[in-house]
Amino acid sequence: MQQRIGVIDLGSNTTRLIVMGYVPHHSFRLLDEVRESVRLAEGIGSDGRLQPGPMQRAIATMRLFNQLCQSSGVQQLIPAATSAVREATNRSEFLARIEQEAGMHFRVLNAEEEAYYGYLGIANSLSLSDAFMIDIGGGSTQVTLMRGRRFIRSVSQPIGALRLTDRLISSDPISHKEFKLLEQTVAEHFANVDWLGKHGANELAGMGGTIRTLADIDRKLRNYPLGLTHAYCFSRDSLADIIEQLRGMTVRERADLPGLNHDRADLILAGAVILHTVMKRGDFEQITVSGQGLREGLFYEQFLSGENPPLLPDIRSFNVQNMARTYNYEAIHAAKVRELSLSLFDQLAILHGYGSWERELLGHAALLHDIGLAVGYYDHHRHGAYLLLNMALPGFSHREQVILAYLVRYHRKGDIDTSELQVVLEADDPVRIARLAALLRLAEYLERRKDQVVQSLRVEISDSVRVIARTNGAADVEIWDANRSSGLFRKAYGREMQIIAA
Amino acid sequence: MQQRIGVIDLGSNTTRLIVMGYVPHHSFRLLDEVRESVRLAEGIGSDGRLQPGPMQRAIATMRLFNQLCQSSGVQQLIPAATSAVREATNRSEFLARIEQEAGMHFRVLNAEEEAYYGYLGIANSLSLSDAFMIDIGGGSTQVTLMRGRRFIRSVSQPIGALRLTDRLISSDPISHKEFKLLEQTVAEHFANVDWLGKHGANELAGMGGTIRTLADIDRKLRNYPLGLTHAYCFSRDSLADIIEQLRGMTVRERADLPGLNHDRADLILAGAVILHTVMKRGDFEQITVSGQGLREGLFYEQFLSGENPPLLPDIRSFNVQNMARTYNYEAIHAAKVRELSLSLFDQLAILHGYGSWERELLGHAALLHDIGLAVGYYDHHRHGAYLLLNMALPGFSHREQVILAYLVRYHRKGDIDTSELQVVLEADDPVRIARLAALLRLAEYLERRKDQVVQSLRVEISDSVRVIARTNGAADVEIWDANRSSGLFRKAYGREMQIIAA
Repeated sequence: MQQRIGVIDLGSNTTRLIVMGYVPHHSFRLLDEVRESVRLAEGIGSDGRLQPGPMQRAIATMRLFNQLCQSSGVQQLIPAATSAVREATNRSEFLARIEQEAGMHFRVLNAEEEAYYGYLGIANSLSLSDAFMIDIGGGSTQVTLMRGRRFIRSVSQPIGALRLTDRLISSDPISHKEFKLLEQTVAEHFANVDWLGKHGANELAGMGGTIRTLADIDRKLRNYPLGLTHAYCFSRDSLADIIEQLRGMTVRERADLPGLNHDRADLILAGAVILHTVMKRGDFEQITVSGQGLREGLFYEQFLSGENPPLLPDIRSFNVQNMARTYNYEAIHAAKVRELSLSLFDQLAILHGYGSWERELLGHAALLHDIGLAVGYYDHHRHGAYLLLNMALPGFSHREQVILAYLVRYHRKGDIDTSELQVVLEADDPVRIARLAALLRLAEYLERRKDQVVQSLRVEISDSVRVIARTNGAADVEIWDANRSSGLFRKAYGREMQIIAA
Repeated sequence: MQQRIGVIDLGSNTTRLIVMGYVPHHSFRLLDEVRESVRLAEGIGSDGRLQPGPMQRAIATMRLFNQLCQSSGVQQLIPAATSAVREATNRSEFLARIEQEAGMHFRVLNAEEEAYYGYLGIANSLSLSDAFMIDIGGGSTQVTLMRGRRFIRSVSQPIGALRLTDRLISSDPISHKEFKLLEQTVAEHFANVDWLGKHGANELAGMGGTIRTLADIDRKLRNYPLGLTHAYCFSRDSLADIIEQLRGMTVRERADLPGLNHDRADLILAGAVILHTVMKRGDFEQITVSGQGLREGLFYEQFLSGENPPLLPDIRSFNVQNMARTYNYEAIHAAKVRELSLSLFDQLAILHGYGSWERELLGHAALLHDIGLAVGYYDHHRHGAYLLLNMALPGFSHREQVILAYLVRYHRKGDIDTSELQVVLEADDPVRIARLAALLRLAEYLERRKDQVVQSLRVEISDSVRVIARTNGAADVEIWDANRSSGLFRKAYGREMQIIAA
């Protein structure tokens, strides 16, 4: 990683620093992340002034962030502030102090910029083309419309989880009266946003700590088997249930709710009501969560500098490559396994009947099949699956990620068993995985020595299947091993399969 | 890894190639492994001749192994053969053919050499000083006595899992008569080994595929939560139960037994009877399984060349270092975290009362605490624990490995919860882990910027604990973060803790 960049997002509630290592336009990797619950907007009164205590906390935190960046070799730092600073009447005083005492020159994003960078974070990490996006912060909420991956318009409302809690909630658990006022206040702010809803786009994506936290609560309630937040989907109905549950609890009781961070326990209800209101207003049945947002948007602007807008042309291929590079994959071997897998896939189309989606997944799985070697040789197929189930892979749904994980798992050794994660899969995915894995395993064994000895394959289909391998040298190892792996093929396709040299 | 070596072990039943990358005396890593069920000893009659079919299979496999070594950059190849070849009357003919047709010059180990290299494999991978070792092969069984880590004596009996099955078992499931004959035959072979048992050493360690397979069956029967075979222990009583179960099953039925490889289903009963007989004869209540044996012994002779005998002076420290290097740990940061952890441990001795064993584990955990970064930044504490629970860490018991995994898991984030793997732990380990993890987390935060700003620590103990940090520069970040992590300390030690700069 040639360059290191730090991005700071100073919000009304929390502030976060991410450190990325990257090669522009090529690859990147998160190296460090620190989050502080500064609550900068705490106690702001009708005069709109940031209070001395919160300012002091923010300045101390920025000093720490700056030291951290210096000692970890960060060459470029992008500190950005959002609504709390933007709207503060003593904003210049605060910015001058941060500059003097923490040595940081903050960029204060206006409401549209804040929405734009959030859009960049999502448009570069979820496979969406036309969608609404919502970012619920401590002090404000942005809703944005994207069409054809382009930023179309946005609205920012000065209501956020912290601000609403500060102003409207004094009872614990919340009284019926306060709850109704909360709902009513939020509804009023979105009553006039008449472009919000299905005539704009069908999908809704969400970012920010409030929405990630709601997703985590939902995951725990459902005993969802994956630990991934990015690309997680939850429904408006589930959200309504969570709100009902939160309404009946004191802040202290909420602290025991799995998935809920202590320092958000008081704010989460107001945040949930904002989200529910927007979902109802736009008639969205569900929301997809993004782990990336404003900070990553600011990062992508640097990473893809020169592009306007700075969008990855192909999120999925990029992230597969990025993951493969992270684990030092052997590019030539992986490319050959991919080529042989896809050749088999294409020539066997009449037997499996799958289309471009399965073909794409098979190709990605082929590139990633050996990443578990970065963990260790023994069981590296299992380690690869662990990586695919525990790392965000932006651009893919959880179902797709699980399919990829199983393909990597079964590129060698063992009979297919996908029951453990069936809840994330569709009913016909076990068959799909078995058929694709059989091809991947064959291709892997035809590349057993990783020396590209098999040049191409010709498939002859009758009652059984014959695969004729054209080689550029002795390929005994490969053909022997591939024939040994034919059991998986027989089970998946119900036909005998034999590999011979041309 | 500067050098690549291949080691082949051609036995009566299976043959295996391992490829190791290594820097002599420094570090090594398994790069590849291939196993073939050749059954070279199959069908040997009273004339003692290897049969044409098995010889052909062995030669073909060696050709493949040779190709594989050549294309993976192996510079040195050590092919070793054991009892099947050693005792064959047509041995020279077979060796000449392998040399001619597969280009390999085999070293034929005599019985004592076979025992010696097995001893080297175990003495370098299990923390044992005085122990018996047993290696059950396809054609012979070696029992060896080690004292003070030195090879004392061994005995080799010409009974192995394949040979006994071939000669004595024709019924399926085995008849009562054949089973009794099997037991009796094995017992006779060990009746005169009068040095086998408690007057020699208390512990028994086992190697080879038969014993590993029995361990895997036992693990599955017990629903043992770890996937590790190396250092797994099982009892003579469990073995007796497994034998009872196998006796009642046909070979085909055994194929469904979890943990049992298809190509061992027929042989496993005879192997189990050999092991049980030796355990009874020597009055051993349990056996510890080694994942390393003959092949690794041959490797260690190269890796530690110049040492006689080639023994790692400190298996545990070596393997911790080796694992840390495998995952590119930051040595200076890790050493500092280790130093600070141990300084806290020593000065807090009066509060925890722990001794050298806990101190050693804490030091190892400190060196390994960040290895999960090789997987990814997010949740790297969890990834580190995954690595420690899924990689063999020779020299440590499973209990110790789980303690290390939990220490790494809790070096940052979250409250201690060790319930998932409690079955591998002792009753007081949760407290032990909580106390050690609290120190590790403190040390980690005092090294937050990885720049060794904290030089030393002084601990003052009264109703609460004060830690005074001597620093060589501003350490606001570290002291802030460490104080934030004091909750873990308070829970583990029941006292408030405060860190201040000197």
